[in-house]
Amino acid sequence: MKNSFGQKFCVTTFGESHGRCVGAVIDGCPAGLPITESDVQREVDRRRPGHVPGATARAEEDKVEILSGVFRGQTTGAPILMLVWNRDVDSSQYERIRLTPRPGHADYTAYIKYGGFNDFRGGGRFSGRITVTFVMAGAVAKKLLARAGVEILGHTVEIGGIQAERKAIEEIKRNAETNPLKCADPVATLEMIRAIEAARAEGDSIGGIVEGIALDMPAGIGEPVFDTLEGELAKALFAVPAVKGVEFGAGFDAAKKRGSENNDNYAVRDGRIVALTNNAGGILGGISNGMPIAVRVAFKPTPSISREQKTVNLAAMENTTLSVKGRHDACIVPRAVPVIEAVMAMTLCDFALRAGLIPELLK
Amino acid sequence: MKNSFGQKFCVTTFGESHGRCVGAVIDGCPAGLPITESDVQREVDRRRPGHVPGATARAEEDKVEILSGVFRGQTTGAPILMLVWNRDVDSSQYERIRLTPRPGHADYTAYIKYGGFNDFRGGGRFSGRITVTFVMAGAVAKKLLARAGVEILGHTVEIGGIQAERKAIEEIKRNAETNPLKCADPVATLEMIRAIEAARAEGDSIGGIVEGIALDMPAGIGEPVFDTLEGELAKALFAVPAVKGVEFGAGFDAAKKRGSENNDNYAVRDGRIVALTNNAGGILGGISNGMPIAVRVAFKPTPSISREQKTVNLAAMENTTLSVKGRHDACIVPRAVPVIEAVMAMTLCDFALRAGLIPELLK
Amino acid sequence: MKNSFGQKFCVTTFGESHGRCVGAVIDGCPAGLPITESDVQREVDRRRPGHVPGATARAEEDKVEILSGVFRGQTTGAPILMLVWNRDVDSSQYERIRLTPRPGHADYTAYIKYGGFNDFRGGGRFSGRITVTFVMAGAVAKKLLARAGVEILGHTVEIGGIQAERKAIEEIKRNAETNPLKCADPVATLEMIRAIEAARAEGDSIGGIVEGIALDMPAGIGEPVFDTLEGELAKALFAVPAVKGVEFGAGFDAAKKRGSENNDNYAVRDGRIVALTNNAGGILGGISNGMPIAVRVAFKPTPSISREQKTVNLAAMENTTLSVKGRHDACIVPRAVPVIEAVMAMTLCDFALRAGLIPELLK
Amino acid sequence: MKNSFGQKFCVTTFGESHGRCVGAVIDGCPAGLPITESDVQREVDRRRPGHVPGATARAEEDKVEILSGVFRGQTTGAPILMLVWNRDVDSSQYERIRLTPRPGHADYTAYIKYGGFNDFRGGGRFSGRITVTFVMAGAVAKKLLARAGVEILGHTVEIGGIQAERKAIEEIKRNAETNPLKCADPVATLEMIRAIEAARAEGDSIGGIVEGIALDMPAGIGEPVFDTLEGELAKALFAVPAVKGVEFGAGFDAAKKRGSENNDNYAVRDGRIVALTNNAGGILGGISNGMPIAVRVAFKPTPSISREQKTVNLAAMENTTLSVKGRHDACIVPRAVPVIEAVMAMTLCDFALRAGLIPELLK
Repeated sequence: MKNSFGQKFCVTTFGESHGRCVGAVIDGCPAGLPITESDVQREVDRRRPGHVPGATARAEEDKVEILSGVFRGQTTGAPILMLVWNRDVDSSQYERIRLTPRPGHADYTAYIKYGGFNDFRGGGRFSGRITVTFVMAGAVAKKLLARAGVEILGHTVEIGGIQAERKAIEEIKRNAETNPLKCADPVATLEMIRAIEAARAEGDSIGGIVEGIALDMPAGIGEPVFDTLEGELAKALFAVPAVKGVEFGAGFDAAKKRGSENNDNYAVRDGRIVALTNNAGGILGGISNGMPIAVRVAFKPTPSISREQKTVNLAAMENTTLSVKGRHDACIVPRAVPVIEAVMAMTLCDFALRAGLIPELLK
Repeated sequence: MKNSFGQKFCVTTFGESHGRCVGAVIDGCPAGLPITESDVQREVDRRRPGHVPGATARAEEDKVEILSGVFRGQTTGAPILMLVWNRDVDSSQYERIRLTPRPGHADYTAYIKYGGFNDFRGGGRFSGRITVTFVMAGAVAKKLLARAGVEILGHTVEIGGIQAERKAIEEIKRNAETNPLKCADPVATLEMIRAIEAARAEGDSIGGIVEGIALDMPAGIGEPVFDTLEGELAKALFAVPAVKGVEFGAGFDAAKKRGSENNDNYAVRDGRIVALTNNAGGILGGISNGMPIAVRVAFKPTPSISREQKTVNLAAMENTTLSVKGRHDACIVPRAVPVIEAVMAMTLCDFALRAGLIPELLK
Repeated sequence: MKNSFGQKFCVTTFGESHGRCVGAVIDGCPAGLPITESDVQREVDRRRPGHVPGATARAEEDKVEILSGVFRGQTTGAPILMLVWNRDVDSSQYERIRLTPRPGHADYTAYIKYGGFNDFRGGGRFSGRITVTFVMAGAVAKKLLARAGVEILGHTVEIGGIQAERKAIEEIKRNAETNPLKCADPVATLEMIRAIEAARAEGDSIGGIVEGIALDMPAGIGEPVFDTLEGELAKALFAVPAVKGVEFGAGFDAAKKRGSENNDNYAVRDGRIVALTNNAGGILGGISNGMPIAVRVAFKPTPSISREQKTVNLAAMENTTLSVKGRHDACIVPRAVPVIEAVMAMTLCDFALRAGLIPELLK
Repeated sequence: MKNSFGQKFCVTTFGESHGRCVGAVIDGCPAGLPITESDVQREVDRRRPGHVPGATARAEEDKVEILSGVFRGQTTGAPILMLVWNRDVDSSQYERIRLTPRPGHADYTAYIKYGGFNDFRGGGRFSGRITVTFVMAGAVAKKLLARAGVEILGHTVEIGGIQAERKAIEEIKRNAETNPLKCADPVATLEMIRAIEAARAEGDSIGGIVEGIALDMPAGIGEPVFDTLEGELAKALFAVPAVKGVEFGAGFDAAKKRGSENNDNYAVRDGRIVALTNNAGGILGGISNGMPIAVRVAFKPTPSISREQKTVNLAAMENTTLSVKGRHDACIVPRAVPVIEAVMAMTLCDFALRAGLIPELLK
């Protein structure tokens, strides 16, 4: 079940970058949820390159079709098949580089694993295009989580080493969605754009960090010792291409702290127990503590660069060089924001269903 | 199956810190592996406090017993039940603090999740003691991986913000095991020890970072898009108490880099394809590329500190304060090294079995 | 994962009888298997009503489309999406009977489970039409099993109480495929046809028994104690609508026998160990013994009959009567033969992959 | 996870007939259930040979120990480890017959699968003794199901071809438990006892059929298309040694019926919908309909007989003969009754938890 994720809200993805379609089957969505193709389309559109600085020129319409599991505008309890057809496909250059794996890409590992049978065009299953399927599933998950009062939020917090200033939740909500880099800090945004443009001008790319936040997840959710909130979220997040690190709350910074600094003290506020800080990122012992769940996800620079790189010819077993042409993002971080949100939504929706937070049947 | 991990090499853990025992059932170990209680004991002993600076005074003998699945010194293919009995248990102070959750611990989240029915003594299922069960399972996994030529290595790379110098694999192998902090850099070790002792003297604790390395994993292992090497390793690693971040290869540093710096170029060396750098940590597209698999794991400072902290009384719903007494580690990082190795071994052994790298039957 | 089956060869089904399509995603098919839409079409065509006595008048073209996971005629290792579009749909009568559940159908249980949100048209997910998706997956599974030398065979052994004479494997192979009832006994076939026609004439239906056989499965396959050959096969077979009983080898007859009659004695023949009889149906302790795997599957009479039946009005909570109109099979047993074969193939293919009988990569 | 069953109420079994212990880990039991070793002991005692006609002379005390997951008499939400130690073990004769597999036993298939490494003493993992672990888990499951008002009942309905008269539920409850064969029909019982004694006198054994019934399971439980009630129950039941057939409601008899006979008509009774007959065995479309769930389980005669049988010598690859000595049941059917109940309870408890019928936390 390598292409499936989730125990109760189970998402199975399929499709290749330059194949006929990419899509997902959602199994386990409760019956009775109103959902339309437009609901899903809205999330998918947030991921499209549009006018995002640094984004690819590939212009897919990405029109969502729901082919099963929805009847008269509501989920039926049966598996939901959703897909978008691939149309703007240009596979011309891939044949040429088939045997010269692009550094930083999965070309070489896929070649070894699948014995050369994998659909290498456009990266196949390893393309960022696959994340459309996460976004589709996440759209449904977000609607379900809303039933439990849980909201998911994502924003860019770092690009090319330039860090956004830490903002309050309300400011992130207000700023990130309309910001061209999905960053809540407009000042840092300008600097980030310059960094992206500089990289692009040099035929290069840059990475960054996205923060995902889940608001109002009740305390008590998570299934230790193995199915922890952190563990399941991390597993799902590493399915997103180019992710190389995941940390919760203070994360790697916590490793530098004293216990007295890092422990989040408790207090009673308005009859509810709250933590006075959130170094835990809303999770203790793998279980939510009622504070915002905060995860930071490190993206490596997208490996497709036009600068010359050293590689090998797999057939001749000889050294060679390569310069990747094609329509690529110089920085995929802003487009990854809705993807991270979607993956968080899928995962937390699964936990919410397991815990009975969302009923099996919606009326 | 929240307390089970793995698809083919499946580990189910059980037991509480102050209950009768802690242990694991391993299901899916191929028949024909020679294994003795001493083999497992050796790994468990590596995790014992011993003379590690900063370690607890709890002195468990931790004598491993294998109660099923091994016959005449070899695995039978049936589930292997292994456990250690708890003996040196002092539960006296826990009743007192039962309703005043320790900041940074899972006390509060467990109380909410299990409605107060959880065995809170010594942290119950959320105690570091549970990691004995990972180490037991990891001992078997390491023996299996050795059949596929894969070796697992762990070492301390940072404590309290003090970073060890980066060392070659051979130096790590030579130094880490005998170093009191399982650190390959003897110079940094001295500074780390001072930092631990300073924290302890102030009734405080400090965190750190452990690096785990898998050597000689062949290229082509991993099951994208969801069952990636990174995803499964991360999920398993977050089961270790106090872990708050996981990164592979350059990890969060990659987010600051250009593609041209971060992409690992390829070359042919002695008829084999190698990457000239290892920013990918041995993994591309969720699949191994034949380079060392390198993961860095951030540990928060252990939350048990004797300094006074703010908390609440769960029954009275009132603010109060707490100072944690008892036998605690000021820094658990060195003792976590064999645990990280074990968790890596469990996970990679599962992948190796899924991929047919280790046969179903050993002869 | 209620609509998914299999650990390594994992089939996820979707679609409704009168929705847009029915199909399946296969995850875990090794890369390198040559497969075309025609290969799958051939099996799907075997299930079509055609000239089978007792079959429905619904005439679906059932044209198979493969939308992902196959590239240049070979599997890639990625998920394979296959579907057929629904075209000849007549949903007119279902609205009328929506609130009067048909006896023997899943109308009532689905209504309760899904709160009335399920797509009830044509039985929705509970229609026999769903079995097209099993047949599609089974077509791939059969091709994989052929790599391991395993062949799957099905035939009708009883209809309406009329039993076919027990035939040798070779005779079953020769007769069943061309027989209109997929029965190897041409004499019993005539009687069965009369029974079906009599039932149809009276607006009634009849049931029967299908036998599935797997030839040349090597000894040693099966994963006790829970993932036994019998257990997994039975679970999968009960997913086929109208199945009410499953037995292996002598099955329920074994319950009447003495041990001395039922035990299959062993002998050495041509240097191989064989059982002299096959009351075990090729399975002992949940593991194959090298003899043909033989399972008998009981089908109840299809519940759609035009004779008047007592039912209730779910809205009014009143007694009422119902006579089911529409295009229905008087006996679905012959059409179930390729379905049983497909389900056996899916299940045994999963076991074969788990056991390493079929490699992860086909070259 | 071959030795684990269940998604939310997950049972992992371990141990061998002549090893140190047999037991189970239950993961997923809600916190707050009062449970004592005596509760479990009571069920385990029902399975002991006692004075059951036809039972083995092996006299195990079978004293249940709960080693984790229960604290102050209540479940904690953590994994529950339960076991009984093996004491009355006589392995003397097994070495002698190690290489001459007993016909009808798993000796040969286990030898092939595990390469001779399996613990063959007393049948190892394939011994009926393993069913103690099901009964332990079932004891907990029954207590949980009682919270949802569901009751499980088992009784012997056929031995050696002698069929018990069909009795009303109340009569089964009244008679079966105290009947020496756990049969509700005292007249048939006498005949069955004679049949067992005749078989034993001739060094032979006989089989039979057990019926399991679940009362008051609400309508709407089951997870089609694959995780049907029938499918999951059948899978679990085939884990019980010697089971060769499973049928629900009319089962194989339904295959002989007309639809008009077999369809259970509906009526409103006291404001509730009921089926006027129960040929469906309480299940339609894989989902409960509110009627009693009724399953019949065929047991082959126990293969251990003292009559001479033909077998082979695995080392010499020669024909030979064998007469099985030792302490064996001439008929295991009566002892299987609590086992069938336990397996039904485990399975239905898992469904009840998945459906939210039993809360995640008991207060």
